[in-house]
Amino acid sequence: MQIVIIGSGNVAYHMAKAFTQKGIPLTQIFGRNEKELNKISEELNIPYSTENLEDADLYIICVSDHSVEKVSKIITKKNCLVAHTSGSLPKEILAGEYRKASFYPLQTFSKSKELDYEKIPFFIETENENDKKVLFELASEISKNVMESNHEKRKYIHLTAVFACNFVNHLFSRAKEISDSQDIPFDYFLPLIDETVQKIYEIEPKLAQTGPAVRNDVRVLQLHEQLLKGESLDIYKVMNHSIQKMYEL
Amino acid sequence: MQIVIIGSGNVAYHMAKAFTQKGIPLTQIFGRNEKELNKISEELNIPYSTENLEDADLYIICVSDHSVEKVSKIITKKNCLVAHTSGSLPKEILAGEYRKASFYPLQTFSKSKELDYEKIPFFIETENENDKKVLFELASEISKNVMESNHEKRKYIHLTAVFACNFVNHLFSRAKEISDSQDIPFDYFLPLIDETVQKIYEIEPKLAQTGPAVRNDVRVLQLHEQLLKGESLDIYKVMNHSIQKMYEL
Repeated sequence: MQIVIIGSGNVAYHMAKAFTQKGIPLTQIFGRNEKELNKISEELNIPYSTENLEDADLYIICVSDHSVEKVSKIITKKNCLVAHTSGSLPKEILAGEYRKASFYPLQTFSKSKELDYEKIPFFIETENENDKKVLFELASEISKNVMESNHEKRKYIHLTAVFACNFVNHLFSRAKEISDSQDIPFDYFLPLIDETVQKIYEIEPKLAQTGPAVRNDVRVLQLHEQLLKGESLDIYKVMNHSIQKMYEL
Repeated sequence: MQIVIIGSGNVAYHMAKAFTQKGIPLTQIFGRNEKELNKISEELNIPYSTENLEDADLYIICVSDHSVEKVSKIITKKNCLVAHTSGSLPKEILAGEYRKASFYPLQTFSKSKELDYEKIPFFIETENENDKKVLFELASEISKNVMESNHEKRKYIHLTAVFACNFVNHLFSRAKEISDSQDIPFDYFLPLIDETVQKIYEIEPKLAQTGPAVRNDVRVLQLHEQLLKGESLDIYKVMNHSIQKMYEL
């Protein structure tokens, strides 16, 4: 099977790397950003182009959500399968006469961070059984965790991921801003952060909640509000309100 | 040195366990909740009482912030050292004529979750050099990470911990609420959550931010708002606003 990856960002890079590591040859990596494509091409030994899209059986589009539709029109071939990697788009956004699919890896990708691809859940949606079989087999080469998911479910998977990953990372950013402001090394907090995550492997997060809000410790809540301002204060208030609502305090 | 732990909650239990594991004998565990004290006493083989506080050189008060002052008055002895374990109280809240100290373990404690005490940072504040030496030596038996910290700094350490731990756990609760609502197993998200944390060991959280807000993906942000309501919607809006402010989007 001839496979082409379209895109040069974090997802494109890691998808290309995941396939290459498993010995699955890629026909081409195609995109606009020549500098990035060149880097990926050199590291992973895959031909690249910014102009001539190679003929393939499967095109995997790894670009930002708002570019998927436009990019999907580049593929003029009809007898092929085209999959996007977005968590929030329907497969019907793909605007060609080919067979359409979704191939969604549930992970946070940064180019500079190595990943264990085996643990990444893949969610697949296709138009027919044969394409499903093809994408399941392909994803199973990379990951131990391959599932089917329609667009409706995928939207909620993506939304959950925003809370459990994107927002969590932003809390780390705001936390570090606070500790930096007092010259407290953020490293102090890493064991606490590790434990916060390890806990949810054993205890429901709702039962693992600690801190002043769930104790309804009004004195500490007020003290903290005096130490904060701007967006961090907004976050502090909304999170505490949400905690207290959840526990009916 | 005779040591008494006061309290029967999560912190009291883990402090007692940490000392016991290192072969440091505890004279007594003292508190109000006989059922909990009895459980801890049986597991760790420490005498307990709800009525008669034993004579000791060091009392470590492990109770909720709002009870520390009241509980500290139980200790009528003068020639002894009394430490509380609160992140947000000054040592002067301790209301006796003894020497006062703070002995703050930066960790999230749940009784049912085992902990590696060696990794817990301890922050110590005392009235004099000798007490400091005593508490440093004691904490160093448990942990590899013992530091001095005055009340001002401790307040900010605690506040940072609320963002990096308590709020993060609450995001997991809200995330699970969303995935549960669609019968999506929360286990799917564990590799993503692990990676979110592993990333900050290598990349500044501010540089590791991914997701629709930092991409300013208005279509996805609007779609997600339609899927949410109540406190989760409030969190969604505040977090995205804060992300966009941080990156000046």
